[in-house]
Amino acid sequence: MTEATPLSKDLVSILDLDRGQVELILDTAESFAEVSERTIKKVPTLRGRTLVGLFFEPSTRTSASFEIAAKRLSADWVSFSLASSSLTKGESLIDTVRNLDAMAPDMVVVRHADPGVPRMLALRVACSVINAGDGAHEHPSQALLDAFTIRKAKGHLEGLLVAMIGDIELSRVVRSNIHLLQMMGARVRVAGPRSMMPLGIEEMGVEVVYSTAEAVRDADVVMMLRIQLERESRARFPSLREYFDVFALTPERLEGAKDDVIILHPGPMNRGVEISSEVADGPYSVILDQVSNGVAVRMALLYLWTLRPEDAS
Amino acid sequence: MTEATPLSKDLVSILDLDRGQVELILDTAESFAEVSERTIKKVPTLRGRTLVGLFFEPSTRTSASFEIAAKRLSADWVSFSLASSSLTKGESLIDTVRNLDAMAPDMVVVRHADPGVPRMLALRVACSVINAGDGAHEHPSQALLDAFTIRKAKGHLEGLLVAMIGDIELSRVVRSNIHLLQMMGARVRVAGPRSMMPLGIEEMGVEVVYSTAEAVRDADVVMMLRIQLERESRARFPSLREYFDVFALTPERLEGAKDDVIILHPGPMNRGVEISSEVADGPYSVILDQVSNGVAVRMALLYLWTLRPEDAS
Amino acid sequence: MTEATPLSKDLVSILDLDRGQVELILDTAESFAEVSERTIKKVPTLRGRTLVGLFFEPSTRTSASFEIAAKRLSADWVSFSLASSSLTKGESLIDTVRNLDAMAPDMVVVRHADPGVPRMLALRVACSVINAGDGAHEHPSQALLDAFTIRKAKGHLEGLLVAMIGDIELSRVVRSNIHLLQMMGARVRVAGPRSMMPLGIEEMGVEVVYSTAEAVRDADVVMMLRIQLERESRARFPSLREYFDVFALTPERLEGAKDDVIILHPGPMNRGVEISSEVADGPYSVILDQVSNGVAVRMALLYLWTLRPEDAS
Repeated sequence: MTEATPLSKDLVSILDLDRGQVELILDTAESFAEVSERTIKKVPTLRGRTLVGLFFEPSTRTSASFEIAAKRLSADWVSFSLASSSLTKGESLIDTVRNLDAMAPDMVVVRHADPGVPRMLALRVACSVINAGDGAHEHPSQALLDAFTIRKAKGHLEGLLVAMIGDIELSRVVRSNIHLLQMMGARVRVAGPRSMMPLGIEEMGVEVVYSTAEAVRDADVVMMLRIQLERESRARFPSLREYFDVFALTPERLEGAKDDVIILHPGPMNRGVEISSEVADGPYSVILDQVSNGVAVRMALLYLWTLRPEDAS
Repeated sequence: MTEATPLSKDLVSILDLDRGQVELILDTAESFAEVSERTIKKVPTLRGRTLVGLFFEPSTRTSASFEIAAKRLSADWVSFSLASSSLTKGESLIDTVRNLDAMAPDMVVVRHADPGVPRMLALRVACSVINAGDGAHEHPSQALLDAFTIRKAKGHLEGLLVAMIGDIELSRVVRSNIHLLQMMGARVRVAGPRSMMPLGIEEMGVEVVYSTAEAVRDADVVMMLRIQLERESRARFPSLREYFDVFALTPERLEGAKDDVIILHPGPMNRGVEISSEVADGPYSVILDQVSNGVAVRMALLYLWTLRPEDAS
Repeated sequence: MTEATPLSKDLVSILDLDRGQVELILDTAESFAEVSERTIKKVPTLRGRTLVGLFFEPSTRTSASFEIAAKRLSADWVSFSLASSSLTKGESLIDTVRNLDAMAPDMVVVRHADPGVPRMLALRVACSVINAGDGAHEHPSQALLDAFTIRKAKGHLEGLLVAMIGDIELSRVVRSNIHLLQMMGARVRVAGPRSMMPLGIEEMGVEVVYSTAEAVRDADVVMMLRIQLERESRARFPSLREYFDVFALTPERLEGAKDDVIILHPGPMNRGVEISSEVADGPYSVILDQVSNGVAVRMALLYLWTLRPEDAS
């Protein structure tokens, strides 16, 4: 294992991490995974720590995952679901978070519809800031749980071919995953309609194709992306039905993949749009494992960023 | 006491229970009731258990009761209030709950506006599902706390005459209570306007009358039902004023009841519609006892369904 | 120190307190302040106590402060954010709170848009009621944290000159602060536009001026008030820009104050309306200290009102 350099105060982007740190996170998550399998799913590790969840976008799944992770570590979790509308204006958002910071939390976990908000806040508060998704920018805890899930299934990340299919432009999961997978030595191939493919994506060092069948060929891992129906104000594809006909992952389209391919999806799934139920619930799917692993990975993040080296001394 | 057969995974309907199990629940609630009377209202029984509240309908009272019950048992309670609108479509609701299930909770407590949702979910998840009210279908924890309250006041349920008055068709409390009271050997009489009386209700083995005065005659227990103002899209009675004049429980109408009659109401009450304040706050009312007992009964449910036999072994 | 008389059941108004009780609260807060500076920010003091937060107005800051205070004392905190609309009608609001009271909480912390609601509820429930802000009436925990902050900076309250500037009529902070500061021997001067100055305010024993420059002269403490943009249905001043030009606290206007003046603001601030950012973030500002101190003061309130003398015996 690579020696890990000290973690920085915040986790806003996968680019905040080096390879040793990623391995530290995944190994720590590994050790926490069994806590959720016990009858008494709780360790006293973070007793007396105050962790704040600040969700400016609705999120049952991610906020539940962080809250359950916090409680299994015995931390005090204080959570707010705020409408972005009342707080989007720069200064008042910063004041809100600086006020929370004055209450001496160890960490604030932030989700916001606008890219860049977690970084902006992180620069202005003393506590650690964890990005739980900022617009189309990044979603590092999702990328880390994807990596954890792949490593658990395959034993390693190095050398794997990972295909990501869907809305490459607007998915925050894509960006975090490309950074992380490449850092860990995997190859990334992306596919989607041309209208959803950002200009210059090749410069990130990924292979670009324009059909699901091509994307899947020889892949070890297929990661389907959610069509963000709620963000699609512009018509970027003719219809959901047409999207399904051309890009959805179906059993037939999966045939070119490796025999031991695994299928990931960050959820929530649009069944019958980007993925068929046969695949989502089929033998190659590790979609629910991702969710289980998410708790373990978030336990690792809460633990590592609450007990940073300067605290441990 | 009847020997209890093992509890099934879920508590969706009173019909999931037999008489021995009901007695087990009521006796367990009896033993938990004193916890809420202590200065330190907490026992370590469910430490490290993860219980999830999933409320698709607003509910201060019921969700508070479950949350307080969970915390007095030292469980970790994670709660979500979700708009039904964003999730009503079958598959996505199931996916949401299967995702939560993948986070290894011991139990999900569900309230939903649509009858049948808790059963549908229970069939698809590993954890226990407790129905906290599904549309006009069932509300088993309410019926159990009603039975607990009656048993506490009268010493037994067997042989009692219980009158239920109001919207017999749309109340989820009615159905659960008829099942439970009959199983425990009580007689049930129902009353309400003909427009609120479901066809064929007699086949449930209850006596049907059409006035409050008749309903109350010789009753040991009078259970008033909430007029569901918010669900009355159709005009099923001329006006609230007229409902009060004809069906409300007033001191005068109570005169034909037994001398030691007790008055229950599942809340929230519409004072001046189905019940007068003199009765609601009067000497026969056990309406606030129902609420206190609700915490004890829910502690029993959380305890018994978290520590089912296969777990105990 | 003055000998403290026993605390009454509720804390609705600063007028519920005498000087000895205020000193007891501030001294208790002093002893709790260091808990939030520890790594393990938690003491077992209120383990097994049930504290309920009932917020009928949105409030991130105040509700976070109470929740964090409760959790650092190891209490069980159960919180509800309710729309006033569904509950404003007298009886149903009272029934809601009496129902919660029947679940045996030790305390209910209430915020409501209508003045008088906390007192009305307090008279009808067995548990303690703490007013967390009722319309334009009172906000006692805010006044207490202001006093704590001033005492910490100055060493005492007696003899200080405190200037309060802004919407004197509609601010609930003003009323609570005038009562408290005068009780503790401070002098109060108020300033604001004539349209925001209540008739007869002089009878409260305060000095009234009509410009920020006059208000600030020789002041030990300057307390800026929030312009309640959201409550200003009537046009009570020409424009926000004009308000800033005439009344905002700017570095220039601060010149007449004492050399060691401190600046308070109850938040949330409207930067560029009632206060300039130079002052808000400047060397005299103790605005974030107020927030930190708020947790300590609320820990003191939760502690003292949960463990009242009759409980301790």
